[in-house]
Amino acid sequence: MTWTRRHLLCLEDLSLAEIDHIHATAAAFKRSLQASESAAAPRSLKGKTIVNLFLEPSTRTRMAFEIASKRLGADTVSLEGKSSSTTKGETLRDTAENIQAMQADAIVIRHAAAGSPLYLSKILNIPIINAGDGAHAHPTQGLLDTFTMREHFSGRSSASSHAENNGEILLAPDLRGRRVVILGDILFSRVARSNIHALRTLGADVTIVGPSTLVPPYFAALGVRVSHDLRRALADAEVVMLLRIQHERQSRSLFPSLGEYTSLFGLNKTRASWLHPNAIIMHPGPINRGVEIDSDLADGPHSVILNQVTNGVAIRMAVLHLCLGGQPLPAA
Amino acid sequence: MTWTRRHLLCLEDLSLAEIDHIHATAAAFKRSLQASESAAAPRSLKGKTIVNLFLEPSTRTRMAFEIASKRLGADTVSLEGKSSSTTKGETLRDTAENIQAMQADAIVIRHAAAGSPLYLSKILNIPIINAGDGAHAHPTQGLLDTFTMREHFSGRSSASSHAENNGEILLAPDLRGRRVVILGDILFSRVARSNIHALRTLGADVTIVGPSTLVPPYFAALGVRVSHDLRRALADAEVVMLLRIQHERQSRSLFPSLGEYTSLFGLNKTRASWLHPNAIIMHPGPINRGVEIDSDLADGPHSVILNQVTNGVAIRMAVLHLCLGGQPLPAA
Amino acid sequence: MTWTRRHLLCLEDLSLAEIDHIHATAAAFKRSLQASESAAAPRSLKGKTIVNLFLEPSTRTRMAFEIASKRLGADTVSLEGKSSSTTKGETLRDTAENIQAMQADAIVIRHAAAGSPLYLSKILNIPIINAGDGAHAHPTQGLLDTFTMREHFSGRSSASSHAENNGEILLAPDLRGRRVVILGDILFSRVARSNIHALRTLGADVTIVGPSTLVPPYFAALGVRVSHDLRRALADAEVVMLLRIQHERQSRSLFPSLGEYTSLFGLNKTRASWLHPNAIIMHPGPINRGVEIDSDLADGPHSVILNQVTNGVAIRMAVLHLCLGGQPLPAA
Repeated sequence: MTWTRRHLLCLEDLSLAEIDHIHATAAAFKRSLQASESAAAPRSLKGKTIVNLFLEPSTRTRMAFEIASKRLGADTVSLEGKSSSTTKGETLRDTAENIQAMQADAIVIRHAAAGSPLYLSKILNIPIINAGDGAHAHPTQGLLDTFTMREHFSGRSSASSHAENNGEILLAPDLRGRRVVILGDILFSRVARSNIHALRTLGADVTIVGPSTLVPPYFAALGVRVSHDLRRALADAEVVMLLRIQHERQSRSLFPSLGEYTSLFGLNKTRASWLHPNAIIMHPGPINRGVEIDSDLADGPHSVILNQVTNGVAIRMAVLHLCLGGQPLPAA
Repeated sequence: MTWTRRHLLCLEDLSLAEIDHIHATAAAFKRSLQASESAAAPRSLKGKTIVNLFLEPSTRTRMAFEIASKRLGADTVSLEGKSSSTTKGETLRDTAENIQAMQADAIVIRHAAAGSPLYLSKILNIPIINAGDGAHAHPTQGLLDTFTMREHFSGRSSASSHAENNGEILLAPDLRGRRVVILGDILFSRVARSNIHALRTLGADVTIVGPSTLVPPYFAALGVRVSHDLRRALADAEVVMLLRIQHERQSRSLFPSLGEYTSLFGLNKTRASWLHPNAIIMHPGPINRGVEIDSDLADGPHSVILNQVTNGVAIRMAVLHLCLGGQPLPAA
Repeated sequence: MTWTRRHLLCLEDLSLAEIDHIHATAAAFKRSLQASESAAAPRSLKGKTIVNLFLEPSTRTRMAFEIASKRLGADTVSLEGKSSSTTKGETLRDTAENIQAMQADAIVIRHAAAGSPLYLSKILNIPIINAGDGAHAHPTQGLLDTFTMREHFSGRSSASSHAENNGEILLAPDLRGRRVVILGDILFSRVARSNIHALRTLGADVTIVGPSTLVPPYFAALGVRVSHDLRRALADAEVVMLLRIQHERQSRSLFPSLGEYTSLFGLNKTRASWLHPNAIIMHPGPINRGVEIDSDLADGPHSVILNQVTNGVAIRMAVLHLCLGGQPLPAA
């Protein structure tokens, strides 16, 4: 397909063909990185300047975008919350227009306010890549998670053998009928929202589960099953995606507390035994070991948590390459 | 001309020919960036290491220097206030001598103490570029502001058509007789000081205006007119340059407070109507919308505020290229 | 020799041949940087990504590693204490495994906990370079310090003539019998520990000296002389290496306080006169002028403090080049 989108704001309006094209491009980048020395990665964005505007703290997403940008040959400049002129009272609009005026070629933005990337896309002429906005969306996370599932369901790679695939990245054609469970704090999770949209587009059968305070019934409108019964939700599921439970719960006497959450919904050996025998366990990180997941499971053979991280770089390379109109890849 | 200066400390002792040479070099860089893909920018400082020593916080100046350095192919390393060994009690001299000993090729310094760049230029052997020292000087700001005015007065470009110039950057030969007004907190402004020196060298007719607590009479010694009468100062002015009013005024019960300043000296539609019909409105940023300027004017057709930002990258490229002895440009 | 080590964790188990090989490689890099434009430095790690994981603050070590990495053509990504996900409660293991999963080619780590680089080297597959772990080790500092001594004792270069050597870097074959004194807070110093190991391997005759609260007798087990008598220790010494005294002493009413330390053990003109006439004075920085050393001596002809800094970049280039398996150097 011919790629025409310049922004990546959310996954709600991405077509199956578009998700597929991003995934195929990411697979090509992942293969080129594995097949040979990293020096061989195509520097398709050489001479471009990408500004990482992270007004909310982040480690892994910022790192993944920075590494992806550099692998593509782009220059990166970081602007983080505290040192920025936003603390001098400058509006987001002025900050962003200044970045554009410096002839940056794209802005990767993380912001506490839902909708801020959309807002920037309407007033600027350069590509805006959403790296997480409030509880709204985290589109590259949804793309990397579904990419990881398609790798798993390709029939060639198991959770633990990704690295030994000789560089061949095979993807299942879609996720039709795959039983995916998202478990945890759905209410405030941009990761859950972006995954739900991508999973539904790819045809998966999605259940969200957790305490009723964190999993509201109106999510059913997004085409997912809403459950508060962990055992029934996990029964025979092929993918379980955990979400991070915020430490703040502990200090603010919310229900459930961390301890209550763990005893009622934390994934442990017994509960994992309810899953399909080949199920994979996912988590966007950072993990709270012993809270939402037992350490043994996080490090066990069913975990693809680190595969998600590896795929995160390839997905960000693909998104930046496509949205910034990088030089065509040799083979893709 | 043959460029011989290795440092850029202030604009007071720069000759007309030197300012002209920096402006011509900046125009060549700006053209090369616009005319083609940014990848085509000449990497004239490839292999050089430029250290940004920002001991006072900054967003746009630091970003502009970083982008300029990278566009020229140089490597950049940042050393910012809080993380630095200056917090362990190291002297500025020792910090700077360490940077030089690591064979950095130049230091770009911002420091709260006036004179610190001059001091470093006397003890180090590498180029020192002043990115703002106390209330003393901000030479690259003065250079980019006068560059922006020369673009405006070239007769070819209007405030809003810079981008459609087909890459041709025309500069007025000088600013002889141009009526320029600097409005705001002159007393503590290194931006005002550097602009005054450059504007006088280029022949402009400069008036400074604002409340008497912020615009002291002794500035007349610099060859400018000192006024406290906004209407008379703005009458028929061709350029009005606003300065940022510090938020601190509000909390420290200084006169005028933010509210008083706005009602007495804030630029609004009525006051802007006193200007010459083709006048341009400038501001070094970050803007306090609704304090020193109305939003409508900041975003209006007379504003060249974002042109200043764009030119700021080209000026820093020119200054770094010249002071570090970059490879000759193909066309310039 | 063929280099086989992938990690640099401490100097305790490095053979004489290995130290020698690192020093020879560093000399080649230093020569290539001096002999020509820095652009000519061999970019032997082009396409590699090096992550600087600095969970304890640092200026000069972080800068030296960053400059070294960039001179070798590698991309660098920084992860510093406060912004990192470690503040969200992530374990060091998870942070490091995430970095590896992003296909970083090496981790340079500084951490407050002794042993953390060793720990990472056991669970990751990529090279781990220790940039300082608690009071345990600071191996690149020990390597650069002994390199600086070998330069001094080569018979060709004096403390002040390093720069005029026409790019020829001569190293003494070893430090056999050289009288080296380490003076200061030995107890908590990773710099002292790493130097002691390297100096003993190179055959030097090492004395540690300082107040008895800071120089415990059990260090004798490392093969050094332990002394609390400054005059006897300094008598005829050919190298005196000072260590930084922590400012915290002052506020915590430890013995000795800063003032007591200076009066009893601070290096001044009189005490320096006890040294061998050609002795060199070293300090890892940042210096407390007027505390552990007089300003005159720090800046005097016997000081090689800034040579240490210059050599620090060359040593880090050599270590990264060797441990990451860089492309062979043209001449080395």
